[in-house]
Amino acid sequence: MIIVLRPDATKKQIEHIVKKVKKLGLKPWVSKGKERSIIGVIGEEDVLSIQPLEVFPGVEKVMPVLSPYKLAALDFKKEGTQVKIGSGLEVGAEQIIVMAGPCSVEKEKLLIEIAKKVKSAGATVLRGGAFKPRTSPYNFQGLGEKGLKFLAQAKKETGLLIVTELMDTRDMASVEKYADIIQVGARNMQNFNLLKVVGRSRKPVLLKRGMASTIKELLMSAEYILSEGNFNLMLCERGIRTFEDYTRFTLDINAIAVVKSLSHLPIIVDPSHATGKWGLVSSASKAAVAAGCDGLLIEVHPNPEEALSDGAQSLLPENFADLMKDLRKVAQAVGRKI
Amino acid sequence: MIIVLRPDATKKQIEHIVKKVKKLGLKPWVSKGKERSIIGVIGEEDVLSIQPLEVFPGVEKVMPVLSPYKLAALDFKKEGTQVKIGSGLEVGAEQIIVMAGPCSVEKEKLLIEIAKKVKSAGATVLRGGAFKPRTSPYNFQGLGEKGLKFLAQAKKETGLLIVTELMDTRDMASVEKYADIIQVGARNMQNFNLLKVVGRSRKPVLLKRGMASTIKELLMSAEYILSEGNFNLMLCERGIRTFEDYTRFTLDINAIAVVKSLSHLPIIVDPSHATGKWGLVSSASKAAVAAGCDGLLIEVHPNPEEALSDGAQSLLPENFADLMKDLRKVAQAVGRKI
Amino acid sequence: MIIVLRPDATKKQIEHIVKKVKKLGLKPWVSKGKERSIIGVIGEEDVLSIQPLEVFPGVEKVMPVLSPYKLAALDFKKEGTQVKIGSGLEVGAEQIIVMAGPCSVEKEKLLIEIAKKVKSAGATVLRGGAFKPRTSPYNFQGLGEKGLKFLAQAKKETGLLIVTELMDTRDMASVEKYADIIQVGARNMQNFNLLKVVGRSRKPVLLKRGMASTIKELLMSAEYILSEGNFNLMLCERGIRTFEDYTRFTLDINAIAVVKSLSHLPIIVDPSHATGKWGLVSSASKAAVAAGCDGLLIEVHPNPEEALSDGAQSLLPENFADLMKDLRKVAQAVGRKI
Amino acid sequence: MIIVLRPDATKKQIEHIVKKVKKLGLKPWVSKGKERSIIGVIGEEDVLSIQPLEVFPGVEKVMPVLSPYKLAALDFKKEGTQVKIGSGLEVGAEQIIVMAGPCSVEKEKLLIEIAKKVKSAGATVLRGGAFKPRTSPYNFQGLGEKGLKFLAQAKKETGLLIVTELMDTRDMASVEKYADIIQVGARNMQNFNLLKVVGRSRKPVLLKRGMASTIKELLMSAEYILSEGNFNLMLCERGIRTFEDYTRFTLDINAIAVVKSLSHLPIIVDPSHATGKWGLVSSASKAAVAAGCDGLLIEVHPNPEEALSDGAQSLLPENFADLMKDLRKVAQAVGRKI
Repeated sequence: MIIVLRPDATKKQIEHIVKKVKKLGLKPWVSKGKERSIIGVIGEEDVLSIQPLEVFPGVEKVMPVLSPYKLAALDFKKEGTQVKIGSGLEVGAEQIIVMAGPCSVEKEKLLIEIAKKVKSAGATVLRGGAFKPRTSPYNFQGLGEKGLKFLAQAKKETGLLIVTELMDTRDMASVEKYADIIQVGARNMQNFNLLKVVGRSRKPVLLKRGMASTIKELLMSAEYILSEGNFNLMLCERGIRTFEDYTRFTLDINAIAVVKSLSHLPIIVDPSHATGKWGLVSSASKAAVAAGCDGLLIEVHPNPEEALSDGAQSLLPENFADLMKDLRKVAQAVGRKI
Repeated sequence: MIIVLRPDATKKQIEHIVKKVKKLGLKPWVSKGKERSIIGVIGEEDVLSIQPLEVFPGVEKVMPVLSPYKLAALDFKKEGTQVKIGSGLEVGAEQIIVMAGPCSVEKEKLLIEIAKKVKSAGATVLRGGAFKPRTSPYNFQGLGEKGLKFLAQAKKETGLLIVTELMDTRDMASVEKYADIIQVGARNMQNFNLLKVVGRSRKPVLLKRGMASTIKELLMSAEYILSEGNFNLMLCERGIRTFEDYTRFTLDINAIAVVKSLSHLPIIVDPSHATGKWGLVSSASKAAVAAGCDGLLIEVHPNPEEALSDGAQSLLPENFADLMKDLRKVAQAVGRKI
Repeated sequence: MIIVLRPDATKKQIEHIVKKVKKLGLKPWVSKGKERSIIGVIGEEDVLSIQPLEVFPGVEKVMPVLSPYKLAALDFKKEGTQVKIGSGLEVGAEQIIVMAGPCSVEKEKLLIEIAKKVKSAGATVLRGGAFKPRTSPYNFQGLGEKGLKFLAQAKKETGLLIVTELMDTRDMASVEKYADIIQVGARNMQNFNLLKVVGRSRKPVLLKRGMASTIKELLMSAEYILSEGNFNLMLCERGIRTFEDYTRFTLDINAIAVVKSLSHLPIIVDPSHATGKWGLVSSASKAAVAAGCDGLLIEVHPNPEEALSDGAQSLLPENFADLMKDLRKVAQAVGRKI
Repeated sequence: MIIVLRPDATKKQIEHIVKKVKKLGLKPWVSKGKERSIIGVIGEEDVLSIQPLEVFPGVEKVMPVLSPYKLAALDFKKEGTQVKIGSGLEVGAEQIIVMAGPCSVEKEKLLIEIAKKVKSAGATVLRGGAFKPRTSPYNFQGLGEKGLKFLAQAKKETGLLIVTELMDTRDMASVEKYADIIQVGARNMQNFNLLKVVGRSRKPVLLKRGMASTIKELLMSAEYILSEGNFNLMLCERGIRTFEDYTRFTLDINAIAVVKSLSHLPIIVDPSHATGKWGLVSSASKAAVAAGCDGLLIEVHPNPEEALSDGAQSLLPENFADLMKDLRKVAQAVGRKI
């Protein structure tokens, strides 16, 4: 940690800071510049994170040197984490995992129909929301536990694994019972109690990036889950909020390589939410695979005109099948497979 | 609702849409332009909100005409809502309510000391977090129920009302017991289950704007609470996330007048989070009062060097007292009082 | 254009608007809804663009239906534009054009060395700035006309075409003389006089998206150039400014498919600026090709330690050569070639 | 400057960096931490700004300690700059200067009518654009030199000073001839050649913040003008681009106190562009005065229905007169006058 002093910092102020730093068990060194002096602090920077050094008299700003996340960092674990899901699949290995299905679970028969179609096109995980976060209280809020049971039935009939969202700590027991992967949605990326609850489980977790969260904050939220002991964790880039309003969100394609350079955790991409328009999903999916993602989460619905949520960004099963063919070629071009 | 058709939309596609709209009990009218035709839909637009008309063949885009929130709208209630807190105070009336105190509740004695000081400077509500949302799992997470009891003691000794944050649906009972105002934090503005829970209560609620939420989304979250029957609701602008990184957030001062033009709900401003630097709090507070806010939420700590959270943005009690004097003049200049 | 009226709009106010619209030679039709009435306007919406209908009494908001750009729109020209550069190349055809070279032109010998290396790796256009927009007045501002001459020499020795930036209307003559493609930089995307000047030329133009410009605004700036008669125009996505601060900018990968869906103009991607870190350029380049771009603009420098600008985002020639091999595979996977 | 090394940086790499730094005439010191070592550099950091130390092997990141602007900094000049305009006025002194008038100069008679009205309400400077930056090539582009002459006539008849925008280096002579304050618009904040041209003049300059520029970048652009010798400079906050789309821009009210804490330059606020809606201008203006601005730039038009640009954000003269009365009270409450 570097403490930059004000040009007019007094000797007494500097001594006060040095004393404080030493009291915390750290070693400070003062370095006097022409315009400004600085104090460097060697040691476990963490103990300083609760100490607001910015407010000490004479301090202009404080610049942390170390990253605030530890368990999520590549420094902690050099080789990429491979998260085992179900009995045979691994997220983070050579194969790119495709999770597909409707935005929300609506009817059992329809769900099973979709499940069969996405499976035959090559998906290995079925997505579908039983608990739905909706901006408006007047919109469809999901079927709840009934939806989870429909997912279980679809799994039984197709062998697909299930990824579904947990929105409330009170629903953990039922979601954990039915899901193979528990999704924490973008709006809950900083719902820290929810993070702790899924961290105490050993079920694989898919943590979506908040729409206004930096990559660093995503890794800090991952740290909540890891620090509770659950290393079966994958991250998900799903678009961030920017000034561009033609698309629903802006897919931060850079995030894939950045996460790979900072962390050992696998990274999934959700091109459906990141674009908000089905006509853009194909281009975004191919880009994500070329950029190095470990999986995709794609919305598919056979009748978007009747979908109870997110119809505008859902692919038809036939478009999804075409896309899978294209994705196989792109995956091969970058040394992966689908 | 206006449905803009593609230039190449066929007669059959148009008929398909018209049929669908009629089936929903609404009246469509088609208007043919030189470049493009459009379909207007008269009636309860709400029934269309679950219908993804964008995906119908021939449709280019859909533009809603009516606002998606109803109970939060000025159209619903022309005069400003005045929220009664405690036995005598009203938020949204002539008096601007000042809520002040530490970021987090730390020690009982310290809390009571702060409470006395902010009260003598003119605050009427004591703020203090017992449950703390922290970006890092390694930072102080709050005292929990013990913190609520300290707040109760401070209330007993000073007569100040209490505002404190609820983070988890499971903690509702205890927070409701101790708080006079239940705060829903920025990170939980779209934690819809939490919104429903506080909506079912009749305790006054302070709903903070999410750091990347539009004003419209804030009003939609308010709608969740109102639609459960709780009209004791006040909004809070606390800064939004932008590219500007010198300040912690960007105070959206426009939001005050915008909320007043769209809604009947009172609006509070939190200059401490919106700036992130105590040296900027005074300027932001005066601006908020001049712009027409109904209250302020300000962090005060007698020893920011030892604060367990947000020390950098906390005012010293003596600075807070000076600010209150300045604010009284500004309030008077705009026909209010503090 | 749709004019949404306030709930309390009077008959007289509506008549006033209708009269105004008719006076402009357009046909209005009024449609009365339960909550709100609206006025639709059929005809050349353009004449309304200078008329601030929002300020008419009784008006709540005005929603344009038609796009404000005409010549840049896909409606205007259905097949993609192919821009001829030099004697044989075409941007916007099957081949993806790679433009590579240093950020700024520094020394003649060095430039020619780089030119030879990028050519042998497969680039067909040499990039290099003679006039440099720099945030600080104390940084290297480019060699000016001398730099243009070095570029001409590099062209002579290698046969590579030249793309270089024009910053000031006063330098048009010399840039036009030496460049095969005139670049308008991100900071000048809304320097409308500069747009008019390059619009009056017939030299191919590379128009970079402003760092805070929407895709619609990019197309409006393109419209400035097209409306002056220069259709030899290609757009360039180079990253937008967002709250994410780990990368220099956020590559808006969605923009590629969006531009293709709205316009006939080719789109180039600049992965060097869009990431700001050489270690991320490879991932971003592959993503851009997979997403469907028509070209890439990549910074290459044999000795980034000595580069006078943007060293941190420049690839070494050997890394560039490796990347080109990878890109050929990705291009093939999406039916293109490099 | 602090150079943070990678955990795996070798001794040889460190020596290579140390050698480089010494060669530049600076003193490096190496400090070894448990997780990471760092190199501090004492001396004129400027010589390093052209040296991309990030690319040196073993380097993780480089953190500048000193601010990159010098002449604009409060460290350079402790007391606030007061810019003399005309014969008697000073911007940056006790009086808050109000500049008002139409967005664009349209007709001479109308301009003079507006000038008289804003003067009688208390404005001392007349604003009006002769050269207009417009997003669409099909919109009114301003009257050019003819508009400047109309401004001159309005000045003659009312005694108001003139502020008007310069868009192109080629127009400097005529704008300098007629203007008392030369405005550099938001879209040209990083048009560095334009900055140099106005920097070589001694006419007062009003530099508007770019819509996506940080405060630091605004100060860097100011540095361009100051470093050419023109200290008659005032800055202008006019709203930044964010995700919030209800208002045209987001007024960054924090910027006022931030500029005051970093620089000696006066700061003006433009509430018309920062809101984009006349109904929000009053609230924003009062906030700006309360926050400590040195002046306001407000659009006024007697017939917004007929304005050729920005009618929607223009106040009627009578509303402007009312606002001035309110502003006087707020100014007085914060120890200023209007």
